[in-house]
This record gives sequence, structure tokens and C-alpha cells, in this order.
Amino acid sequence: MSNPLRALWSARSVAVVGASARPGSLGRLPVEYLRRHGYGGAVYPVRPDGGEVLGLPAYPSVQACPGPVELAMLLVSADKVPGAIDDCVAAGVPVAIVCSSGFAETGEVGARLQDEIVAKARAGGLRLVGPNCIGAVGVETGLVASFSPLFSGAQTALVPGPLAFVSQSGALGYGTVSLAFERRIGLGQVVTTGNEADVTALEALCALAEEPGCTGLLGYVESLTDGAALRRLAASGVPVALLKAGRSEAGQRAAASHTGALAAGDRVVDAALRQLDIVRVEDVDELLDVAQAFAQPRRPAGPRVAVVTTSGGSGILAADAIERYDLRLASLGPQTGAVLREIVPAFGATANPVDVTATVMGDPSLFDRALDAVADDPEVDCVVACFCVLTGDDVAQVVTSLERIAAATGKPVLAARTGAEHLAPAAAAALHAAGIPAYPTPARAVRAAAALWQVSRPRRGVALPGGSRCIPAPAPGATEAELKALLATTGLPVPRHRIAANRDDAVAAVAEAGGRAVCKAVVPGLLHKTEAGGVVLDVTEADAAATYDRLAALGGDVLVEEQVDQGVEVLVGVAPSPLGPVLTVGPGGVLTEVFDDVALRLLPVTAHDVREMIAETRVASLLAGVRGRTRADADALVELVVRLADTVAAWPAGFELDLNPVVVLPRGARILDAAYAAPPEE
Amino acid sequence: MSNPLRALWSARSVAVVGASARPGSLGRLPVEYLRRHGYGGAVYPVRPDGGEVLGLPAYPSVQACPGPVELAMLLVSADKVPGAIDDCVAAGVPVAIVCSSGFAETGEVGARLQDEIVAKARAGGLRLVGPNCIGAVGVETGLVASFSPLFSGAQTALVPGPLAFVSQSGALGYGTVSLAFERRIGLGQVVTTGNEADVTALEALCALAEEPGCTGLLGYVESLTDGAALRRLAASGVPVALLKAGRSEAGQRAAASHTGALAAGDRVVDAALRQLDIVRVEDVDELLDVAQAFAQPRRPAGPRVAVVTTSGGSGILAADAIERYDLRLASLGPQTGAVLREIVPAFGATANPVDVTATVMGDPSLFDRALDAVADDPEVDCVVACFCVLTGDDVAQVVTSLERIAAATGKPVLAARTGAEHLAPAAAAALHAAGIPAYPTPARAVRAAAALWQVSRPRRGVALPGGSRCIPAPAPGATEAELKALLATTGLPVPRHRIAANRDDAVAAVAEAGGRAVCKAVVPGLLHKTEAGGVVLDVTEADAAATYDRLAALGGDVLVEEQVDQGVEVLVGVAPSPLGPVLTVGPGGVLTEVFDDVALRLLPVTAHDVREMIAETRVASLLAGVRGRTRADADALVELVVRLADTVAAWPAGFELDLNPVVVLPRGARILDAAYAAPPEE
Repeated sequence: MSNPLRALWSARSVAVVGASARPGSLGRLPVEYLRRHGYGGAVYPVRPDGGEVLGLPAYPSVQACPGPVELAMLLVSADKVPGAIDDCVAAGVPVAIVCSSGFAETGEVGARLQDEIVAKARAGGLRLVGPNCIGAVGVETGLVASFSPLFSGAQTALVPGPLAFVSQSGALGYGTVSLAFERRIGLGQVVTTGNEADVTALEALCALAEEPGCTGLLGYVESLTDGAALRRLAASGVPVALLKAGRSEAGQRAAASHTGALAAGDRVVDAALRQLDIVRVEDVDELLDVAQAFAQPRRPAGPRVAVVTTSGGSGILAADAIERYDLRLASLGPQTGAVLREIVPAFGATANPVDVTATVMGDPSLFDRALDAVADDPEVDCVVACFCVLTGDDVAQVVTSLERIAAATGKPVLAARTGAEHLAPAAAAALHAAGIPAYPTPARAVRAAAALWQVSRPRRGVALPGGSRCIPAPAPGATEAELKALLATTGLPVPRHRIAANRDDAVAAVAEAGGRAVCKAVVPGLLHKTEAGGVVLDVTEADAAATYDRLAALGGDVLVEEQVDQGVEVLVGVAPSPLGPVLTVGPGGVLTEVFDDVALRLLPVTAHDVREMIAETRVASLLAGVRGRTRADADALVELVVRLADTVAAWPAGFELDLNPVVVLPRGARILDAAYAAPPEE
Repeated sequence: MSNPLRALWSARSVAVVGASARPGSLGRLPVEYLRRHGYGGAVYPVRPDGGEVLGLPAYPSVQACPGPVELAMLLVSADKVPGAIDDCVAAGVPVAIVCSSGFAETGEVGARLQDEIVAKARAGGLRLVGPNCIGAVGVETGLVASFSPLFSGAQTALVPGPLAFVSQSGALGYGTVSLAFERRIGLGQVVTTGNEADVTALEALCALAEEPGCTGLLGYVESLTDGAALRRLAASGVPVALLKAGRSEAGQRAAASHTGALAAGDRVVDAALRQLDIVRVEDVDELLDVAQAFAQPRRPAGPRVAVVTTSGGSGILAADAIERYDLRLASLGPQTGAVLREIVPAFGATANPVDVTATVMGDPSLFDRALDAVADDPEVDCVVACFCVLTGDDVAQVVTSLERIAAATGKPVLAARTGAEHLAPAAAAALHAAGIPAYPTPARAVRAAAALWQVSRPRRGVALPGGSRCIPAPAPGATEAELKALLATTGLPVPRHRIAANRDDAVAAVAEAGGRAVCKAVVPGLLHKTEAGGVVLDVTEADAAATYDRLAALGGDVLVEEQVDQGVEVLVGVAPSPLGPVLTVGPGGVLTEVFDDVALRLLPVTAHDVREMIAETRVASLLAGVRGRTRADADALVELVVRLADTVAAWPAGFELDLNPVVVLPRGARILDAAYAAPPEE
């Protein structure tokens, strides 16, 4: 069965509930737009007293419409929405877009009304988009199920194409669509999701990923709370770029552990999108820049960029951006250098960035040969061509060259043209027709190339959820000793340890631990044991009894533990997030608080992910050995973290687990401390 | 005497050396452009065989011109430039622009030719711009002393205004100028500086800062090497924004110390510009965004921004950007809230960002009242107004409101219009005419507002170079003991210490140090003493003799030093940079290498600067006391750093000084280790 959400862009019939003939009324606009943009399906205006709307017969209810309704658009006031939903359900409509405002965005009363319509829709098998949204558009078919003023512009021509765009915000969404069309970026579908009472932007994007011919997905989202849908979206293989707003809410979650505090808010979103190779953009400009790159068919096989420029300055700006966006400036081969030295004048540059100078551009055959040499170089994965005051006469020649080498090499070619439009009025259209994305500055071209590489690079091994080592979660309030015993059952390395039954037993336990032990007070709820004087190092059999007495006085058990040698202290933790459990790795011990330096990943993870996490943080340099210290066993840390991720895979959502420090030794690693907080009760 | 560089934009006569009538030749273009853009001064074509160029009589030399020549433009081939320079000198020309290529940019031979022309010019009292540049423009007077194709465009109209622009790159520079004019950004002067053999972009900017009516300076620079000129520029009080290219060269300088490695390249530029309140931008777009803000006359009194939006999405994006660019979201007062609650519908928002919704915009008086209330609020320093699909009819009303409140409150008002141009074709011109800078996205408007605040905030106390405590530099190869003794003479806190004359004296010295000492091998050139086994802690009288023997065996003196308690270890250093000596503060000891976390400032500095440096790094949290440790004496550290800055003020450029660690105690601070590297000999 096909996804019911497809009706949003390919319904063959639309009911406009709340349609009106009154000029200026919202209920008139969709009817007007559907006609203006050539929609070929059936349009059924629905209004209580029937009659006509813009020449079309109107019906008193959706059920009264003379044919099946594949999509209903609700433009009635909030209080009339529940009745309209009932009507849609009764008519067997699969999807309704609720454009009306007056729901959760207005406060508690509105939120209750919203719950009510969702309940009705769910019970009746109706999918609900909105409320408080501005509808959806199927661009190919002219299905403009929207009241945005964008579609009233006499000059607004829909530009169809292989990309799709979903926006939680209506007004900003259609503003963005207008800018996309202005840039000639073709869109196949547009969906706005508003309050997301039922259908979320993520779900809409997942449905769009299934559309045949879709080559890229764009989204503006304010909330991202469905980790599973995000993974599904990434797994579709269609390139995705998201403008995720609401960064500034970061860090507002109260947390019971360091891991919880470090893995909060926007950082999780950042890490999750990077992990899933979803491009995160910062602004509308950048979203459209990336869209232009997605719209051309070529993909880089690696991160190595060659810059060909007519201006030294543009070349430097491009090189700066290549570093900033984690691409690599390609090292051109000797053959390429030889060709370029023949062509490029002395005041140009034959190394990358290659400055062919404006002189060379004046000779089409030379420019062509230079570009050929660069693009053919096996060291080059992508070409960024920079022009400044490219004027009218040069355009056709440049475009022909760029188009030819892109086709011949299959490598993406992006252009930066830093100059006013009137200097080369034909350039934008010509570059677009040639499939060469063009940007106003070198840095923006490079940034788009980086996004293209992010969605093109080989996918890492996919981590399988639910590892074989998965065990039940600890009991709420589990002590350190219980927790360590539990972790040890899946092979996680904890120091030899046991609870001392009394002062004499403490002496025996120290002996068992090798004659030198750490003694710890095990007091439920005592998170910062060290500060509370609850940890004693270097305990020998001689002082074991006195130490026992002192720690027992803190009101709990006394744990006697093998004393582990000094090593690199690492924090390994798991904390909840709206997207699911987040794994955290960073410098441990005292450094955790001083240096807010952690890498995050959604669970599950692969060993490859864990190695990347280590490399992202200062843990890498700590493991490598600072100031002549011995190198620590990074493989043991990776093994420990992967095993931990596996161990907790089936624990109920919402728990926090802090292993801090994990000590990484020259050989092996040990979990010195462990704290667990059970999910808060609902 | 007025600055001779003024001729670049206000010469009353220009000689075009290498003028030609041949269509397509570079020598024809300036003559053509000067005429086309209405230059009213004298134009003297200069060519060997005289004759006419475009109807103007040509002269065989600059000396042969019939009147004084205030500016010469050289368009002859490189080999003819030295002769032309001689000619200019003989004719008493104050400034020559050498457009010709074929100098330092082509290699050694060209570099020698460049040195030759600079020597000739200097000897003759001629200032030289270029070579390898594309000239300069005085926009008001139509003095287009340039061959850029920009000025050949039939549609290129010069847009005069109160900003000036200097670009090291010619092609990128005029590309940027064309984009500025396209955005209606008025420029008074444009200068390109090319190879900067004599006149640098910084010097040109300093001269432009003196122009009456100049309200902002824009620059594209690739090299910044004159710290004094940068300070002069900042001291002019004219707002400056620089696009400094060449970030990716960062860190390439070989350094003899940690401070040297940490204070390299682009970081110094970043720190210096921030210290001097010069706005650093990342791209051409951003340079022009900031220019638009500079071009309007109002300045914020603080960092508090109110966002008024017709779209919730735009509001969130603006709030994100306010956090990203270190501004503050204004907390609106209760009165403002009361007014807004009357006006804004339930589905909008009355807290900042204020979402008045498109509904309110439909009623001019309501929109006006809402804006009034927000802009009048004493908690608000700046207003960012966001619109999405603003269509034709709404434009006039919006512009009137924004213009009125800007004038009434004197607060800057910036607009973001996220929508295609055709939806509101009149908007851009109307907003510009009203003095409201307008941007395509909320984030770009906020970023420009942040730049405006950076150049408007109260200047910090100016540090005076050459402190009273200044002492001569250490001798090259000074040992740690000598260095500490020297530093102690200006009151810098070093532990009690002395060189032990022999093993018996070592025992005595340990007794003098309080019976517990640190012994160190003092071996010239041994930078990492600890790794070499050259530092022994906790030496008592009992083991002093043995320790002495061990350390003496390393081949140098043995220093016996009072052992200082544990405290917070800090790196304090000074390293050379192209802009002058750079002060570095960051975590010390082992942490220096693990966490690349330093704050930099050009010397001299004030105590305020040093406090900011501490706050920028993790030193702040280390001093505040981690995990229950005692707070350390931050004031003592500030005092130490300021005293150090004063001490080294007159040391010859190029030295490196590493104090690492400085230990900050609960009371006081001590310099535990000190290393000095004299400036490399030329």
C-alpha cells in the first residue's frame, strides 16, 4: 500500500473546506491558486450553504462531494475543525491539512482542542497535517494546496525539479521556496507541517524519500524528537540537508550526571546529524546553496578539491574555505603541472589554487586545456571554478568549458561568480542550464562542495541495535558495587573488588587485592565521592581497619578494590536525549569539568564511530602520550565503549550512566567508577 | 601637509602612462572610463609618440604634460616601469599607481625589479601603489584610475557614499565593488594595492579614515604585518571591517617555544582584530552585510536586540543568531508586554522574539504601535524586523513604520526580508531610501547588528606602550636562574632559588629553601627538562647531595629552589608575530599541550585585557576551583601578567618567553619555570 502522505503532493482530488468567493479571504486563495497553476484534478469547494466558488460548484460537506476526496484542506476557524475532521473521516479521506490557527500555539485550551482533533483523526484512520500550517504543493501537477501569498504573485512560476522541501514554519517555508524558485532550484514537492500534531517534518521527509526521481531533500525543522525516523531518513540514501532552528535552547535540560549535562540539547542534534551524514546548515542561504549542489547529478569520490580561478584573491578565499569545511586542497600531479606551466602566465599560479588569470580566459582553447588538465587529474575529486568580474562575452565560453569537463570527467564542477548580475546577465541562466551550480563567493561554493562530499562519502558500517551482550538494566538505586558486578557480566573490565563485611574482612580484602587497594564508601545518592572524602587510595593491610572505620561512618558499605595504576582518565557515559540514548566520550576525572570536550553519538554505534569520537576530542592526544608519557591502549578503550553500547542496548529509555573515570593503561582499560540513574518515573 | 595618498581618490589631474587608442588595449580603458564617468580634472595620455587618444592630446612623457600631474597611472610593460618611475619623479608627481604585472608575483627576477622601482620611488619622494594592481577610484569625482572591466559595463553607475573600500586583490576587489553598487552601498573611494611594494592596504585605510565624512572602512587583505598601522587605524575611531584571507596558512611558523607555536598565524590576526574592535568577516557577502549596517547612522548603546517578526520561524532563526554572535535577546519590560498583548493575536508571541503575525501587519496602526512599544523599551538597544513573503502592498507601510521608529528612538533598525525579489520589487529601494539595512535572512541581519555593536561599544582603557618597569632584555642563552633573577628585579614573583656551588652547598641550599626543595639541571638549550629527568621534586637535606650529583651529570649547573605548593598551573608567554609581540595566557603544565586553549593579545595590554584573556580560556574555571578545590588568586595572576607585559615592553622584537608553569596559589602566584629565546639573528 502506498504511503497516504503521497496525497499531499499527488492527490487527484482536493476538497477545500471553508472555501469562499470573497476577495481577500483565505478560503478563496487555494481555489484560485489551483486554477492559476493548472491543477488538473478535481477541486471541490466545501461551504455550508453550497453555491459556487470561482465558477466551481460548492458542496455542503466533504461527504457530499461527488467523487472520492484524496486530500482535504481545512480553512475553517478552530472551533469548526473537529466537525470538519468528522466529516473527512466519514468521507474516507486519507489526509487532511489543517491550516487553521488557534491550537497548541495559543495555550492550554488550544492544546486540548488539538489533542481532540488528533484523537478523532487517529480513530478514523485519517492522517493530519498541521494545524497552524500553510499547506502543501505538488509542483509538477500544480496541486497548490496552500494559501501562501507566494502563489498570488503574477510572476510566481512554479519551478519543478527533483528536490523536495519540508518546513515546519509556513511563512519562512514559502519565503524559502520563493528564493529557491528565484535561483531556478526546481522542487517537486513542498510540505509545511506547522504544529505537527500528527505528521512531523521527519515523517514527511521519509515519505518524500520514497518518491521516484527524488535526488535531494531539504528541511526546515524546529523540533527533532524521533531518532528512529531520523535513522530511517538517513537510511533512504537520498541526500538530506536540514536547517535545524532552536540552537539557543541548548543546555536547558537539568541533568543528574556529567554525561547528562554534556549531552544536552543542540549538541546532540549536531552529533546525530553528523553521524547520519545529514547535512546541517545554519541559514536559508546555505540551505539553498546545498540544494543547488544536490540538484546536479555528479558526486565527488573524495574530499580533494581543485580550485581554478581568474583571481588570486578568490583562490585564497577558496583555500581558506576548503580548510574550514574539512575538505582537502588537491595536490595536482606532475603532468597537470606541466600542462599548466605551458598555459598560465608568470603572474598566475600553476599550483592549486590554480590562477589561470583573466588573460587565459580570453583564449577559449587555452582555458579549456587548463581546465581539462586539472579535472582529469586523478588527485582531483571536485572542481571549484572562481570568476570575478566575468562579463557578458566570456560567459558562453566559460559555460561551455565547465559543462564539457563536468560531463567528461563525471566530477562535480561548482562555480563562484563574484560580480554584479548586470555584468553578465546571461550567466546565471547559462550556468544553470549547463548543470553547474553557481554561487556569489568562493567560500559558498566550497561549502556546498563540502555538503556534497558529506552525502557522497562511503557510509560507515551500520551499527545493529540490540547487541548480543545486552543485559537487563540495573535496579534503580544500584550501588557502585552492584553496578560494577553487573557490567562485569558482559566482560566489561572492572577492577577486582568486593564489599568488606567488617573491619577484619577489610584487611583480608586488601590482601586479596594485592596488598594495595582503593577503599570507597558506597552510599546511595553520593555522586561526588572524592569531594566527600569517600575515596581512600593506597590502602595497605596495615591501615585497612582504620580506613574501614572512617568510610563506614559515612553511612554505607565499604568497597575494597584492586588499585589500578595511573593511566589516561576518560569519561564514557550514556544519557537520554529526545532522539534516544546518546553515548558520550571525553577526557575524564577532573578534566571533565574543566574542559567541556566531548564527542556524542546516538546509540547504536560501531567501533568506527568510537574511533572517530576519540579523534574528535583531546582523548586522542592524551592516549598518544603527553610529554613523553607512555602511549595508552586505545584499542582497549574502543573495545570497552563498543561493549558498553552493546550492554545497554535494551535498557529502558531515560537512564543515565557515567563511567568516570575509565582508566586506559598501556595495556587494557579499567572502569574505576560507575554511576547509574534510572529513568525518572512518569 | 595633507596625505599624498589622497591623490588616489581626489587628484585633479591624471597622467595615463601607456595610454593607447587601440580598442581592447588596457591603455585605452582608463581614458575611456574617466570620460564615461564624468571626471572633471585634466587627463593626460602619455605615449612615446604623442598623437591623440580618444580625442585627447597625448604627451611623450609625464614631464612633458602641460600642467602639474597629481596622479600617474602606469600601464606599460614591467621592463618600462623603472623609466616611467624616473619620469614621474622628475615631474614631481606625488603618487604613481603601477598596474603592470611582472614583479614579485612572478619570482626572483620580478622581485628584484620591484625592489628597484621602490628604491627609485623612495629616493624621489614618490609614493607607489602596486605593482600588479587594478588602480583606484574616487567615486564622487568620477576619477576612475582603473582598467577593471567593471567600469565598461553600460549599466555600471558609480554609487557614491560615505564608505571606503581597499582591496589587496584587484579582480576580487572590483567584483566586490560591483556587488556593493548592486546593493546600493555607496562608496566614496576604492583602492587596490596589489603587491604592496610600498603602500599597503592598511596605510591606505589609515589615510581614508582621515577623509571628512567617512563613516566606515572596508578592506580585503591577504597580509597584515604592520601592528602599528593597525593600531592607528583602530584609533581613528572610524568603524572598520576586514576580510582577512589566508587563514589556512595558520600555524606554519616554526617556533622554539609552546607560546610560539600557540601564538602563530591566523590566531594572532583574530585576537588582534578583536582586541582593536575591528570587525573580522569571513566572506564577501558578510563584508557587504556589515557595510550596509555601517552606512546607516544609528549605533546601538548595548548588545540587547529585540526581534519583531511576522513568522515564528524567522524569530527562532534570529534568536539562534543572537546567541551565536554574542548579542543578547532583550527582556522586554512589562509595559511593552501589556501593549503587545493588546495587539498580537493568540497564535503570535508577545515575548521577544515578538511574533506580531501577518495579521497585525495588515493593520498599519497596530503594526506601528507594536513596533513603537518594542523600540521605545529602555531594555532594547537595536531592533531586527523579520518579514517573509512580504508582498508589494505591504512594503510602503512597513518601510514607513521602520523609518519612523528608527528616527524617533535613534536605535538601529535592521530588516530581514526572506523572499524573492519579484514578490516586492519596490522593497529593496524603499528600505534603502529609508536608511534601513535589509538582508535576505534573519541570521545575516543579526550578524550585521553584532558588527555594529562591536564597533560601537565603549573602548577599553588604552594600554600605554613602554611601561615604567621596563628592563633590558636577557642575554641570549640566559639560563633559567639568570632569567628568574632578572624577572625578580621588576617584582615578578619567582621562588627563592640559587645555584648550588657543589654537593655540600646543595645541602645548605635545601636547608635555606626550608628543608624541602626542587632541584633542577640548568643546561642551556634543554627546553623540556622534566622529560630529560632534569627536575627532582621533594628534595630533602638527606638526599640533596645524591640529587646534586645526578643533575650535575647532565652537564650544567644545579639550581636549588624553594618548593612551591600545588596550585593552578598557567602558561604565560610572549612570542613574536608579524603584528608585534603577542601575549599568550592559557592552561599550563601538561595541559598546555593537551588542550590547545590560549588567549592572545598584542602588547601592550591593560589589566582589563588580561582579565578577558583569563575568562576566554579554561584558566578561569581552573582558578575558580574544580571539584571542591580551593579558589586560586586570580588577581595575583592578573598583576603578574600585566607586570610581565610591562617588563618586556622594550625588549627587541622577535624574542620568545615562556613562563610555564606559573603556579597560582590561594594567595599569590609563582613563576616556576622560565625559558627565553633571543630574537634570531638576521
